Amino acid sequence: MLLRNQVEWAIHCCAVLGSLPPDRYLATKTLAEFHGVPKEYLSKALQALAQAGVLVGTLGPTGGYRLAKEAKDITFLDIVEAIEGKKKTFECEEIRNNTPCLKGKKKSTGVCAVARVMYRADEAWRKELRSKSLAELIQDVIDQVPADLLKANAEWLMDPK
Amino acid sequence: MLLRNQVEWAIHCCAVLGSLPPDRYLATKTLAEFHGVPKEYLSKALQALAQAGVLVGTLGPTGGYRLAKEAKDITFLDIVEAIEGKKKTFECEEIRNNTPCLKGKKKSTGVCAVARVMYRADEAWRKELRSKSLAELIQDVIDQVPADLLKANAEWLMDPK
Repeated sequence: MLLRNQVEWAIHCCAVLGSLPPDRYLATKTLAEFHGVPKEYLSKALQALAQAGVLVGTLGPTGGYRLAKEAKDITFLDIVEAIEGKKKTFECEEIRNNTPCLKGKKKSTGVCAVARVMYRADEAWRKELRSKSLAELIQDVIDQVPADLLKANAEWLMDPK
Repeated sequence: MLLRNQVEWAIHCCAVLGSLPPDRYLATKTLAEFHGVPKEYLSKALQALAQAGVLVGTLGPTGGYRLAKEAKDITFLDIVEAIEGKKKTFECEEIRNNTPCLKGKKKSTGVCAVARVMYRADEAWRKELRSKSLAELIQDVIDQVPADLLKANAEWLMDPK
């Protein structure tokens, strides 16, 4: 079980967009070049983020994306679910009801004991992602990345060469 | 992100094997028929469980599988990792180091702030799976499934029609 690499791209893009002055849009091309990822695939991720209400996109030559709400109101889970969907990581096929001894008899109902554990693990994963906001990530980046690199990055993003 | 359906099959098979008298083996064919799943795909899952040290397999006409250790010493995580592997669900491609402003300069090292959160969520998921043993699942099944069905299932498994 592996998340798509667009999840990594999407989180980094959101962090970059959340570091910009409000109402500043960045083009897909700029975000792709900055992160060194293929523009076409990144484009799909950004569209998914817009569809999920994390980003707002505009069209046209000066078009691009900005955050749809404040970084403190966006969680890791919002971004991950925009890319991966909200479906649980475990799908119960109710194979407990396939036993030959149940033929013609009443099937078991309620959540299967196996699924219950798998759903709980799924929720533990989501809970952890829900507990971290984009604003907190941006603060982590500010705390960790050397100030001169942060400045150079910001300048490049506002005026990509 | 979705787990393979073999994960569900593998957990159910382990629960069945853990309910048998010790040293009793079940054939892949029997386990496949009991769960109503394709024998060829189940066979791969059972082989993976044996390779991971969860099951022991024997060859020959009376061959099959039994648990490799006591059910109390097998966790959901052991079974899930046998099928899905131990790799983290998030792979960090270090795209933070692709910024044009780092060209020719020293790359960032240490765990990226994005990856740190994703790894923490992965570990929360694994922790939940690690906390539940196969023995506990078998007890849940005994508590939930009607006694007459449990008895019929046990009889069918010892002498499949």
